[in-house]
Amino acid sequence: VVGQTNVKRTIWWDGQLVSVIDQRYLPHRLVVQRWRSVDDAIEGIRGMHVRGAPLIGVAAAHGVALAMASNATDRDLDDALGKLMSTRPTAVNLRNVLERVDRELRRRPPELRAASARVLAESLADEDAEDCRAIGEIGARLIRDVADRVARPVQILTHCNAGWLACVEWGTATAPMYVAQERGLPLHVWVSETRPRNQGAALTAWELAERGVAHTVVVDSAAGHLLRSGLVDLVIVGADRVAANGDVANKIGTYLKALAARDSDVPFYVAAPTSSFDVRAATGEDIPIEERSSTEVTKVYGLTENGHTTGVTVTPEGSAVRNWSFDVTPARLVSGFITERGVIPAAPFAIAQTVPV
Amino acid sequence: VVGQTNVKRTIWWDGQLVSVIDQRYLPHRLVVQRWRSVDDAIEGIRGMHVRGAPLIGVAAAHGVALAMASNATDRDLDDALGKLMSTRPTAVNLRNVLERVDRELRRRPPELRAASARVLAESLADEDAEDCRAIGEIGARLIRDVADRVARPVQILTHCNAGWLACVEWGTATAPMYVAQERGLPLHVWVSETRPRNQGAALTAWELAERGVAHTVVVDSAAGHLLRSGLVDLVIVGADRVAANGDVANKIGTYLKALAARDSDVPFYVAAPTSSFDVRAATGEDIPIEERSSTEVTKVYGLTENGHTTGVTVTPEGSAVRNWSFDVTPARLVSGFITERGVIPAAPFAIAQTVPV
Repeated sequence: VVGQTNVKRTIWWDGQLVSVIDQRYLPHRLVVQRWRSVDDAIEGIRGMHVRGAPLIGVAAAHGVALAMASNATDRDLDDALGKLMSTRPTAVNLRNVLERVDRELRRRPPELRAASARVLAESLADEDAEDCRAIGEIGARLIRDVADRVARPVQILTHCNAGWLACVEWGTATAPMYVAQERGLPLHVWVSETRPRNQGAALTAWELAERGVAHTVVVDSAAGHLLRSGLVDLVIVGADRVAANGDVANKIGTYLKALAARDSDVPFYVAAPTSSFDVRAATGEDIPIEERSSTEVTKVYGLTENGHTTGVTVTPEGSAVRNWSFDVTPARLVSGFITERGVIPAAPFAIAQTVPV
Repeated sequence: VVGQTNVKRTIWWDGQLVSVIDQRYLPHRLVVQRWRSVDDAIEGIRGMHVRGAPLIGVAAAHGVALAMASNATDRDLDDALGKLMSTRPTAVNLRNVLERVDRELRRRPPELRAASARVLAESLADEDAEDCRAIGEIGARLIRDVADRVARPVQILTHCNAGWLACVEWGTATAPMYVAQERGLPLHVWVSETRPRNQGAALTAWELAERGVAHTVVVDSAAGHLLRSGLVDLVIVGADRVAANGDVANKIGTYLKALAARDSDVPFYVAAPTSSFDVRAATGEDIPIEERSSTEVTKVYGLTENGHTTGVTVTPEGSAVRNWSFDVTPARLVSGFITERGVIPAAPFAIAQTVPV
């Protein structure tokens, strides 16, 4: 399905099937993919047809529901949970969601699991949308604070896509921008392109354009120049996993932006629902960092002049390539977390108080 | 001319013509371009057929020689100098070379200027090669110091291409690597791809592969993860212009690497001949930062599966793009300058002592 422009969410039910926006085709085409089975969901998450910490949690719950609709024994449940859990290692939402799904379904008889799983998947989607809206309301106050003291649009730098495409609706880092825009606060967003998969240039820029938010795309390396030149008031990024001490695993390059923000005394906020916190990870060192295929680096996909999507190789044939997807930003560089429960400092005590175990 | 593999320098005379490696086709094709006139040289420098601070200085001198071979009045000299000076703003080598060419040619009668200009261009090429070789000898000692205390290959991170392709021979940042390799010191180089033009992935990786230096390409954002993970012993980059206080203008993203190196206590060296220092720029704020076409960001060039070179668009049609080519790394983050006259600290007094006014 191509070209649905009335899409409001990234994932929804179409009868017995799950529809998702297949994000591999953006910004050039809006493609909706239908998942018929848990295997489709597994492939969709691992292959990054859907991505973003909150969304892959919700998508995994939908995958379990597809599995249960087919066969719902304990073994089928174990199998679905195990395979979905192994799709992506870094975002903790996947584990948090699958553990909750496990608790809810395990105690039900197999014949009730399909219906329960679907209700739960839908609830998780709704909860994520509500959490993100709350993050938007709370984060918009930070933007208003800046707007109150400058006589120009508030300048925000973000990285990767922590937008509604990474969630169900609203997004995490983008939610404050969308709420601020709703309220008429003038703002402008610097979008870091986010190599190797260009989620900034391809997804965040597309989202912001769709909603009429003023924005400019820059290469990832430009963050330092922007910050040192006084062109950024606030940095807001998302998180794939927050450790108990406030260390943040997020898209590779986030740490460099945090360093540059600190060097220029610009606040660096991480917008994340409490479902992205992992109190079992004491520090960032306990967070597994996914390494993906070198092809993501060597081959860049985009639109040719005659409108086809194709990949072009940018490296010499014989050169080795490594491709870590995430880095860890130490808590000391984080000004605060914008969660659905308020802005909290990057400190163990505040996190323990706010995040349910 | 395509496929000359016995090329030893980036620029040389072929009879009355100037030959250069046209770097836009690397790493996939080695193309040699012939310049017949100063206009060819101007287009070649502005269009980045040749690039790199030392090389654009030397190339400009060759451009003046081509101009003088055609017409050598004062007005022709002014015209050539003025047009070449305006090709690229950030690298100071261009100005330093053109001022020297002006001094040498102005005092000669027009009929002797063609021969003088050519001799001078050749001398400048030779001097650059000698300076770079000296940088290599001096910088290799820093690599040996690390090799003496670790029982594994020395891990070096570099950014952009400060290689022989950016100079005449040897390179600046790469010269210590090549000399270390000659001496049998085990080393491995992390090559930052360097968006938007990918000079790391396309040029540095190609150079290192050609000379058998072990290396791995990573995205620009990976530097923080590499440094925090203990995977880097030394950072060595080049410079487009060094101010009198030790601030360094270099390829956009250099500053982020310097911040990350400091945060992990890894030495950050800038390899640059004294011809890249500008004692007239008091600090980095006096260095003009070039902004180039947004197309460099939106369109990525590479090799298609059927072996053609093509560009693909990676951003949405309606998104604005900014493209600053350089950033400024403050002197406080620089461990030292590797110059042809020795390693000097990033301090005004040391720079004033070492660099001729």
